[in-house]
Amino acid sequence: MNLILLFKDDFIAENRVRLEGRRLRHILEVHGPAEGDELRVGLEGGLIGTGRITSMAGDSIEMGVILTQAPPPAIPINLILALPRPKVLRRVLLSVTAIGVKRIVLLNSFRVEKSFWKSPVLEPESIQKQLVLGLEQARDTLLPEVLLRPFFKPFAEDEMPELIKDTLPLVAHPAAQEPCPRDVHQRVTLAIGPEGGFIQYEVEKLISCGFHAVHFGERILNIEAAVPSLISRLF
Amino acid sequence: MNLILLFKDDFIAENRVRLEGRRLRHILEVHGPAEGDELRVGLEGGLIGTGRITSMAGDSIEMGVILTQAPPPAIPINLILALPRPKVLRRVLLSVTAIGVKRIVLLNSFRVEKSFWKSPVLEPESIQKQLVLGLEQARDTLLPEVLLRPFFKPFAEDEMPELIKDTLPLVAHPAAQEPCPRDVHQRVTLAIGPEGGFIQYEVEKLISCGFHAVHFGERILNIEAAVPSLISRLF
Repeated sequence: MNLILLFKDDFIAENRVRLEGRRLRHILEVHGPAEGDELRVGLEGGLIGTGRITSMAGDSIEMGVILTQAPPPAIPINLILALPRPKVLRRVLLSVTAIGVKRIVLLNSFRVEKSFWKSPVLEPESIQKQLVLGLEQARDTLLPEVLLRPFFKPFAEDEMPELIKDTLPLVAHPAAQEPCPRDVHQRVTLAIGPEGGFIQYEVEKLISCGFHAVHFGERILNIEAAVPSLISRLF
Repeated sequence: MNLILLFKDDFIAENRVRLEGRRLRHILEVHGPAEGDELRVGLEGGLIGTGRITSMAGDSIEMGVILTQAPPPAIPINLILALPRPKVLRRVLLSVTAIGVKRIVLLNSFRVEKSFWKSPVLEPESIQKQLVLGLEQARDTLLPEVLLRPFFKPFAEDEMPELIKDTLPLVAHPAAQEPCPRDVHQRVTLAIGPEGGFIQYEVEKLISCGFHAVHFGERILNIEAAVPSLISRLF
């Protein structure tokens, strides 16, 4: 937690917050704070700044808050991920939020196991938890939007044209001829398949939507490594 | 498992292997194979090619093996990581092996918890397991070398000069002035600190060894995202 993310409900007066629960425990364990100490804070959807501890009780802490600075810039990408297995999804949500992705589509694909769509990791509170951890990691305040799309074809046909509008749409595909471009200076929509890859029908469907199939070298990376690697190459 | 990694002990005759245990179970579950099917295989430290199933018994499978192709090129990097927490370490070892790192130093740092050095994840068999999974993921055959260095100062003073020789030595440091370079065409030694970063003494020690402190933007990434992002930016 490199920043303590504050929500509107934390405010007990103007510029004054009271924290309990997870954030209080973290502050006590990691910072070992005293009254007067300053911690880095940020308001969800807003500015970042400092929180000065004004009082500590056993079960809550109060801070005077000054918010002055814009959060770090976002990465201009729409990230479409074939739904990963639940354990991996949790970590990927945290990582891509930390990296600065602001729009994530979790999409079905032929090789996604049906059971993944029933995982409690997809509950809104569970997703939100990972996003908050990612923002706290990267000192950001702006929550990404996460869309769940359990049907490939209607998503590709009905929503994709709007999503990819004014972006460079790329699908990572090991069999592609073209290498993934570097250092592009435009908004990208990047689609990454499941373990085993998108099936041919899916790749063709994406190409018919306007996607370019690109490869990333001979190595097939696990999703946790592939996503940061590709984004870092693109921007 | 995008490649089945074979070891010398698997060979029961020239070009003929018998597999049991984990690899057999994987083949049965994922590939649902029949006699005559061809699977991608590679010999540890050697070439990759195909294995043609010649017989299947309940508890073993035999393949005729033809090895013809070089494994994918390695990434020219020495990666020095402040020892991450055990759960993270397991995943990072797999990911960096998949990415193609061939030399990994797990180093102590002031902010590494002492208990991490006692984790069973550091047992040779446990490390080896993650490396093999990484090679199988990326269709590689060459195991990385992993060095454990639980003392920062003697490592920096005695071994570092040899390690960084003929490389560009970089330490990732959020407070650095210089951004991490892109697309360098030389061997790199990259040092990445623990959660909370290297302490000032450590950064100065590395700089006195010849390292350049470089930052990677305003965001502080979790180690799982930072490592692939930095490597992908460098190469």
